[in-house]
Amino acid sequence: MARMTDAERRRELGQQFRVDSVRMSAAAKSGHPTSAMSAADLMAVLVDGYLRYDFDHPKSRANDRLVFSKGHASTLVYAIFRAAGAVSDEELLRYRKHGSMLEGHPTPLIPWVDVATGSLGQGLPIGVGMALAAKYLEKLPTRVWVLCGDSEMAEGSMWEAFEHASHFGLDNLTAIIDVNRLGQRGETMVGWNLDRYVARAEAFGWNAIEVDGHDVEDIDDALSRAVATTGSPTVVVARTKKGKGVAAVEDENGFHGKPLDDPDAAIAELGGLRDIHVEVAKPEAAPTRDDRSAKLELPRYEIGAEVATRKAYGDALAALGSARADVVVLDGEVSNSTFAETFAKAHPDRYFEMYIAEQQMVAAAVGLQAVGWRPFASTFAAFLARAYDFTRMAAVSRATLALCGSHAGVSIGEDGPSQMGLEDIASLRAVHGSTVLHPCDANQTAKLVAAMADRDGISYLRTLRPATPVLYGADDEFEIGGSRVLRSSDEDEVALIGAGITVHEALKAADTLADEGISARVIDAYSIKPLDSDTVLTAVEATGGRLVTIEDHWPEGGLGDAVLEAVADTHEPPRVVKLAVREMPRSGTPEECMAAAGIDAEHIVAAARQLVAETVRTA
Amino acid sequence: MARMTDAERRRELGQQFRVDSVRMSAAAKSGHPTSAMSAADLMAVLVDGYLRYDFDHPKSRANDRLVFSKGHASTLVYAIFRAAGAVSDEELLRYRKHGSMLEGHPTPLIPWVDVATGSLGQGLPIGVGMALAAKYLEKLPTRVWVLCGDSEMAEGSMWEAFEHASHFGLDNLTAIIDVNRLGQRGETMVGWNLDRYVARAEAFGWNAIEVDGHDVEDIDDALSRAVATTGSPTVVVARTKKGKGVAAVEDENGFHGKPLDDPDAAIAELGGLRDIHVEVAKPEAAPTRDDRSAKLELPRYEIGAEVATRKAYGDALAALGSARADVVVLDGEVSNSTFAETFAKAHPDRYFEMYIAEQQMVAAAVGLQAVGWRPFASTFAAFLARAYDFTRMAAVSRATLALCGSHAGVSIGEDGPSQMGLEDIASLRAVHGSTVLHPCDANQTAKLVAAMADRDGISYLRTLRPATPVLYGADDEFEIGGSRVLRSSDEDEVALIGAGITVHEALKAADTLADEGISARVIDAYSIKPLDSDTVLTAVEATGGRLVTIEDHWPEGGLGDAVLEAVADTHEPPRVVKLAVREMPRSGTPEECMAAAGIDAEHIVAAARQLVAETVRTA
Repeated sequence: MARMTDAERRRELGQQFRVDSVRMSAAAKSGHPTSAMSAADLMAVLVDGYLRYDFDHPKSRANDRLVFSKGHASTLVYAIFRAAGAVSDEELLRYRKHGSMLEGHPTPLIPWVDVATGSLGQGLPIGVGMALAAKYLEKLPTRVWVLCGDSEMAEGSMWEAFEHASHFGLDNLTAIIDVNRLGQRGETMVGWNLDRYVARAEAFGWNAIEVDGHDVEDIDDALSRAVATTGSPTVVVARTKKGKGVAAVEDENGFHGKPLDDPDAAIAELGGLRDIHVEVAKPEAAPTRDDRSAKLELPRYEIGAEVATRKAYGDALAALGSARADVVVLDGEVSNSTFAETFAKAHPDRYFEMYIAEQQMVAAAVGLQAVGWRPFASTFAAFLARAYDFTRMAAVSRATLALCGSHAGVSIGEDGPSQMGLEDIASLRAVHGSTVLHPCDANQTAKLVAAMADRDGISYLRTLRPATPVLYGADDEFEIGGSRVLRSSDEDEVALIGAGITVHEALKAADTLADEGISARVIDAYSIKPLDSDTVLTAVEATGGRLVTIEDHWPEGGLGDAVLEAVADTHEPPRVVKLAVREMPRSGTPEECMAAAGIDAEHIVAAARQLVAETVRTA
Repeated sequence: MARMTDAERRRELGQQFRVDSVRMSAAAKSGHPTSAMSAADLMAVLVDGYLRYDFDHPKSRANDRLVFSKGHASTLVYAIFRAAGAVSDEELLRYRKHGSMLEGHPTPLIPWVDVATGSLGQGLPIGVGMALAAKYLEKLPTRVWVLCGDSEMAEGSMWEAFEHASHFGLDNLTAIIDVNRLGQRGETMVGWNLDRYVARAEAFGWNAIEVDGHDVEDIDDALSRAVATTGSPTVVVARTKKGKGVAAVEDENGFHGKPLDDPDAAIAELGGLRDIHVEVAKPEAAPTRDDRSAKLELPRYEIGAEVATRKAYGDALAALGSARADVVVLDGEVSNSTFAETFAKAHPDRYFEMYIAEQQMVAAAVGLQAVGWRPFASTFAAFLARAYDFTRMAAVSRATLALCGSHAGVSIGEDGPSQMGLEDIASLRAVHGSTVLHPCDANQTAKLVAAMADRDGISYLRTLRPATPVLYGADDEFEIGGSRVLRSSDEDEVALIGAGITVHEALKAADTLADEGISARVIDAYSIKPLDSDTVLTAVEATGGRLVTIEDHWPEGGLGDAVLEAVADTHEPPRVVKLAVREMPRSGTPEECMAAAGIDAEHIVAAARQLVAETVRTA
């Protein structure tokens, strides 16, 4: 056979991707082959002609990045891996089988996948993070390629990505929209009106190119123009047909997320099995990154001084930035409230202002960590709720990143409930592998910020708006998973367990209780997940099983529940009285709001007093 | 004094709004006066010339709706209320004081506020819901006016709203963007490049009008054109100055969210106190809504049949729609998976396809319920995480709406963790006033769907992908807050508490345990919030304090924690062994995934056996 032209080879490669997608989903009896078939030609041209990637060294910073924002087209990316020689045919056909790394949607269990996708609208904003790293931090000529579905263009997060990519001039980012017109249950809002995508992209400052997504020469031309474009990102808007190549499903509604009825006939129609090897171009070697580090000189605060933990976050982060070259910081246009601005002033080259776009902020953090950076992202605790799906997916991505939510709880006072952040602990505890920290003083905050920089997984720091007295010395150490017993004696009849602002209330309560002749242990449970179970269990024993938990948070899923979990399976479980915010708070002073919520010293005293009165000491 | 022209009066009114904003924030010592001052002229023209609203009958369906998407400009809307005679000057000056309805950000505690705002990017998508109601359900000539900030245009949810409003041809919706250029900590990405907003809006199919936001005649012209526009929504893009009218702060950075330093001088500069009464036009009376209702004929399923609870959701919803004219349904482009399509087919006039835009979906539900409808909104449980901030804020809005999350848990199998929904119970329990339901069979599902339609607040139904055997008769009743004891005897040594798929595993486990001579009580805790504490406490007593909870969910914040909460403050707390998903799941068959997660019958048997072996029966 004569040597094929580029176009012939790419057409054949596209067919191979289709055939493999049909085979994989047939073997798995599930999957989204028609969604892969529409994008097969786009990817054939990309991997054969443009992608620069060393499959033997997937983590090399010299590599381009390929993100499947439409993660349900997983058979397509896995077919690419087979064509590139990274995955065997046998492995390919274990698609979706238990134990196979080729799961229903891509995850980084696969060495050549950087981030998990499958929740639509996330791949492009994550790609923005990768492109930021390449352009501003790495300063390397690598490119980020993102395959997007047209259905996911309805997600606002995609437009956050469009705006940010343009704002940051990410000409190293190319989005390819596979406009196959059909969503899961019917046509998209835009259909095949590609001009609308083009107009929107241009209005957001992108270079937009419309192509026939099944014409490999047209695609080649578009990608070459994307590479040549400077100053702005490029989107290739490709008109495609879902299920392209198999008449029974091509451009037909009703075949989303289903294997083909007759895979053998489909494979025959597609021209049969192929075994084309694609020689993906390797990138030029990149210089080693300057990961200098210096001794960490954390800020120090005097005991008794009044310092907001959010301020200590900023101070510590700036110090961390001086010690570690891999720390980068993002904020959602509230850096003067979260104090991320302290880092921004100290290390402007490693600070990214993400404006009021929390989804893009967390997505960018996921992208940055995927290429080896240590991101810290902050906004009000309340507004991290905006990025909850991104945080959930970050766990599926096995991402390591730090979040900071400031202005948590009713102690913010006058701004009212929309700004209070009363579900942050619950929602972030329920993220797989997460760490949840809630310091009560500035020195403790600084130590925990440092610890977060060495912590795997998603770690969350909850900070306070008001200044609180410094309780701990600047040389005290605080570990993740630890706690501090602030008051204790052999006579303790009850333990008061708080975190953050409620530690200070618990201390006041313990003083009052002492005046009444009740000795109360006070525990600062700053590490809510993982909780210091040993200290809790010791307190159970010491107090004869009387615990009061106090949290500036809804009763569900917070500190109290973490304590209940710790004592759930003990031989002599304690009684636990949980003080938490049970009614919708109102505006007021912090003190009024704490009192109204029943979590101030007075309410703690009352709860402890009653618990002691009701229970006979058993130990 | 000669009668003022419209323009003169509106200019004066704008100044009054500024003066009142300065006064309020001075009295409160907090607030966002400069953000109110930029939009004062826009609102003066709107309320004096365009808004049709009866302050004596705020809930009248004949009223226009005014939403402050930039909720931090609360002093401006409160100043409007004073000018309209709805709020006294004395009340105005209690702004942000504890107990005042005039909170830091608007909430529906105020009779003339429909929804809470303060989390940016929510007012416009909520307005889309209101406009959908007016145009398609009410078929009334009312208008929805939404004041937007320019900073919040960075939120993707705003572009979801732009796309949906255009898709639905919402010519009764007008957005007014107060482009004051300055965010909280500096300039926005767009600044005063108003043409960019115009281009984006036009690309999304809107009619866009650029105005000088301090020229009342220019504004008047724009609003009159908005009213005259048919077929598409209109956005008025207004160039304004933050802090307009007071030289010390006008167009200056650094004054966001702060009262003015010298309020008296500012008031003098603004021309002093005014007491202009604005005669807001009353709307024409609207015909009474046809809220017919018929007897509810829920679907019935045979005991032993295999029916997915998600299918029963669709069936019941369609039945509910036949019985109640106020039920409306929304879905995030997965209606053939959630079975919302069953309703859509039966009642197409009350179904809104929201495409893959979960934020817009929940926001539209909030808007619909604000004007008297009963929305049910569905997507995969996993993807409700996308709308978490909207759900949180819906609670601040005191909204009543129903959410349904399908495909919950590892029992979905092959699609993998991105689609599994393992944090939905935790996150939705931590929404104030919420109800969380997780039925295990089709008849139970149908009854709970009916109950949700009568439930205040935010209720959440969690449904399963796989078909499960029908356990209950079609005439069995299931109340919110109830549970079912499926197995019990006087000999029970342990109680197995499950919900959804784990009920079926618990039943199998009880059979195996019975063979081993261990009598196990089985509780179907379908109402996770509120939980049936009495039944749990009875089981504690009956079993001598041995509980095993089983959930297809992360360990944090789910069913197990709800049970722990119920037994926390009892005199003889039980031992509770919590089975939950503790490692990141992989693709596989549902059975493989359940087994790998340790929540199938075999693991339940092992846990129960060990618990019984370890504990001496105390009762």
